[in-house]
Amino acid sequence: MLMKNETYIRVRKSMKFKNPIIVEGLPGIGLVGKIAAQHMAKELKATRIAEVYSPHFPHQVIMRKNGTIRMLRNVIYGYKKKDVEIVFLLGDVQAVTSDAQFEVTNKLLDYFEALGAKRIYTLGGYGTGKHLDTPRVLGAATHKSLIKEMQKEGIIFGESRGTIIGAAGMLLGLGKLRRMEGVCLMGETHGAYVDANSAKELLKVLCKLLRVKVTLEKLEERIKLDKVAGDELKKLQGADRGPGESLSYIR
Amino acid sequence: MLMKNETYIRVRKSMKFKNPIIVEGLPGIGLVGKIAAQHMAKELKATRIAEVYSPHFPHQVIMRKNGTIRMLRNVIYGYKKKDVEIVFLLGDVQAVTSDAQFEVTNKLLDYFEALGAKRIYTLGGYGTGKHLDTPRVLGAATHKSLIKEMQKEGIIFGESRGTIIGAAGMLLGLGKLRRMEGVCLMGETHGAYVDANSAKELLKVLCKLLRVKVTLEKLEERIKLDKVAGDELKKLQGADRGPGESLSYIR
Amino acid sequence: MLMKNETYIRVRKSMKFKNPIIVEGLPGIGLVGKIAAQHMAKELKATRIAEVYSPHFPHQVIMRKNGTIRMLRNVIYGYKKKDVEIVFLLGDVQAVTSDAQFEVTNKLLDYFEALGAKRIYTLGGYGTGKHLDTPRVLGAATHKSLIKEMQKEGIIFGESRGTIIGAAGMLLGLGKLRRMEGVCLMGETHGAYVDANSAKELLKVLCKLLRVKVTLEKLEERIKLDKVAGDELKKLQGADRGPGESLSYIR
Amino acid sequence: MLMKNETYIRVRKSMKFKNPIIVEGLPGIGLVGKIAAQHMAKELKATRIAEVYSPHFPHQVIMRKNGTIRMLRNVIYGYKKKDVEIVFLLGDVQAVTSDAQFEVTNKLLDYFEALGAKRIYTLGGYGTGKHLDTPRVLGAATHKSLIKEMQKEGIIFGESRGTIIGAAGMLLGLGKLRRMEGVCLMGETHGAYVDANSAKELLKVLCKLLRVKVTLEKLEERIKLDKVAGDELKKLQGADRGPGESLSYIR
Repeated sequence: MLMKNETYIRVRKSMKFKNPIIVEGLPGIGLVGKIAAQHMAKELKATRIAEVYSPHFPHQVIMRKNGTIRMLRNVIYGYKKKDVEIVFLLGDVQAVTSDAQFEVTNKLLDYFEALGAKRIYTLGGYGTGKHLDTPRVLGAATHKSLIKEMQKEGIIFGESRGTIIGAAGMLLGLGKLRRMEGVCLMGETHGAYVDANSAKELLKVLCKLLRVKVTLEKLEERIKLDKVAGDELKKLQGADRGPGESLSYIR
Repeated sequence: MLMKNETYIRVRKSMKFKNPIIVEGLPGIGLVGKIAAQHMAKELKATRIAEVYSPHFPHQVIMRKNGTIRMLRNVIYGYKKKDVEIVFLLGDVQAVTSDAQFEVTNKLLDYFEALGAKRIYTLGGYGTGKHLDTPRVLGAATHKSLIKEMQKEGIIFGESRGTIIGAAGMLLGLGKLRRMEGVCLMGETHGAYVDANSAKELLKVLCKLLRVKVTLEKLEERIKLDKVAGDELKKLQGADRGPGESLSYIR
Repeated sequence: MLMKNETYIRVRKSMKFKNPIIVEGLPGIGLVGKIAAQHMAKELKATRIAEVYSPHFPHQVIMRKNGTIRMLRNVIYGYKKKDVEIVFLLGDVQAVTSDAQFEVTNKLLDYFEALGAKRIYTLGGYGTGKHLDTPRVLGAATHKSLIKEMQKEGIIFGESRGTIIGAAGMLLGLGKLRRMEGVCLMGETHGAYVDANSAKELLKVLCKLLRVKVTLEKLEERIKLDKVAGDELKKLQGADRGPGESLSYIR
Repeated sequence: MLMKNETYIRVRKSMKFKNPIIVEGLPGIGLVGKIAAQHMAKELKATRIAEVYSPHFPHQVIMRKNGTIRMLRNVIYGYKKKDVEIVFLLGDVQAVTSDAQFEVTNKLLDYFEALGAKRIYTLGGYGTGKHLDTPRVLGAATHKSLIKEMQKEGIIFGESRGTIIGAAGMLLGLGKLRRMEGVCLMGETHGAYVDANSAKELLKVLCKLLRVKVTLEKLEERIKLDKVAGDELKKLQGADRGPGESLSYIR
């Protein structure tokens, strides 16, 4: 139970999977991926199976309303129903330097491989710098062979440009080196504000891909309730954003 | 006696404890925690038991008035009287990056565990951005079960918001992973200046918690005498403050 | 096939050499070296023999037009014809801190030594801050004994001043410690824009040194086609440039 | 002969000592220490015994006038005559972060201990922010017992304030932990320009301490000749200076 000076995955509950799909929703541009993944995990009543602590996350603890503290962390949730198996990666923060991101990502991939995972969906926002009433969902895949299957659900390939920064990119890049396959799903978003609308479009597509049903009613409500936490998160992210990470890239 | 490239705790005097309480008072907002802890250690005539050197502290030596130099460091003091056992963590600086803070904190916790410690009080200032004539003492605990005991001494829980940065947070967060319990005690303070008044209120509460008596008379005097050192410390802290560490967080 | 937290050379094709010449053309000032080396490797239809991934490269994946992603990387190409043996080091990026550059460079030198290499040509731009119609090619060598041979091909020694930053410098410096010999070949360039003209002059000299023939016709065309990629690369470079790396130094 | 990813001391010539005095003169404020130590080593015709390479020095190679390159480095010179034994530490740069400075300093101290050294003099400038016609030499010692001996040569103790940053401080601080003794000798200097005058005063004192004679005639001349190199060095230093290192501290 002793954490040392490297990323530490604290398994809280053993849950067996055959071939789960990983869904990553860590904070990034417009919080699009985080909102979508978090909402789905809550609606599905997914089970908390592990917590991730890292010396590469900010050296801070969060003060909770009930008077207690907890470390900044990522949390992993599992969901199983018939032949649908999903593992969600959610959390407060992600590592912000390359060395750190590689260390954390490799630790996570070790764990996901041990769970039997072979496919990863990473979620994010694709910054366009303008407001869009009907944001589209863009995709970028590790392998060409995945694209046709994705296009059937309305995901658009070959239009996104530039680079994918952080966990959404590295889980796919390092995963690919391990022969895992994956797709980054990006909701178009302005980039300068939290975008629940883009998250909704992303959620719809994700539901089809994962063959699950999730109501969207509580999404807006949940965002409002989380506003205080959201403000804190935005501050943290602002502080953490490196000099070369422009809003025009997705994360 | 040879220090290498990791944090090094140089034990100067062996002192046996059964179950000491750790009191952390490293430099932070308003120097509130440092002033309070340092005053108590001096008034109790606590014994210097160890020094802490780290490659994560600034690569500087301090020039003393007597013509000699010493490295920047933390110093650990022990106090025992009847069934009161306290171990103070004081010092010039704390590490300023996450990786560094994790390394130093884990080294310190190893040492505190070896001394038999199971409980930690970390002290700090809670920045409010305004002057308060009667600053309160706010608390944030590792476990809910601690809160009632603390509230009896007038410590207010559930009002502090945001995150606790640095040693005051990480000793609790990493300690909790080791099944140690702890509370961060924060004196309300403006945040932009050294605040002896807030330190006094913090001291009163701390005396009750630790069941010791300490006169407050010399506190002001001591601060004035230490002014030169204080100025240096403020400079060091200013230089060390990372880009994301705003005054509105406590440390 | 598993990459961990250090630079990883993924060998894709075994190719035997006796004594190949290494030609480094990673991004730097005016992209002079990169354009020259890349053009030569393509014209000679050199074979991709290895890819280089590193936690010291930005934690980003590039989105390709075909809808797939790939990690930022360096790529190594081999060429053999009669007694001409060349190994090209090309790529998107180079490491930007000293520690990182040392780690990557030593990994590369291990690999180059294993291939039998004893000589390295590193290519770069020499920033002059002004436009030149007929840029010259300047040289700086690991050993005096190399200079006369180089001067025969019109390379000018003893005129360049200052330091060579990054891979172009470190491959020579660390190579020299391993008893490898090498020359940095620098095309004079303004420094503030991509300079195909300087790259051409560099190519002409390089062809003579390596005893190969390469047409220059497609060079301009290739640069135009790569414009989108080029823009991305320039952004990445800008983001990656450290505070102390001025345009007046070559890279 | 293979350098890896840590500081590497390449011994070029074996030279036996009984109890040499270490004299450090790396670049710092006003280049005062560097000028003084370098002049003395040249005048005494000291022998180059080792070179120091480090991944913590800038990843650059210097282009020399003769058309060759060399890595940035420190160089160690030895001098023996009757019972006078001196080992000089000179060089282009010093490490600029704490972790790096600890690693380099510990490697150097290992080597100095192996040579039999028990005493270290580190040289530097003490920034006053004003021009002084007759700069004094201030001292700060590892042990009180050294002060009286030093005061006999006119060195002033107890007047310097603040901290000593970098190698001049850490060699003493980490040396003291190994039971080595040492003194930092600081020539008063403005801090904003290279100060040969302060270096002269420092040299006079150093000659007395070390019981050697050195003419000062060539000092000014040497500085002028080295102007180009000096300009480069100043640029490097400027780039390397960390955010918290103000001119008012010595280095």
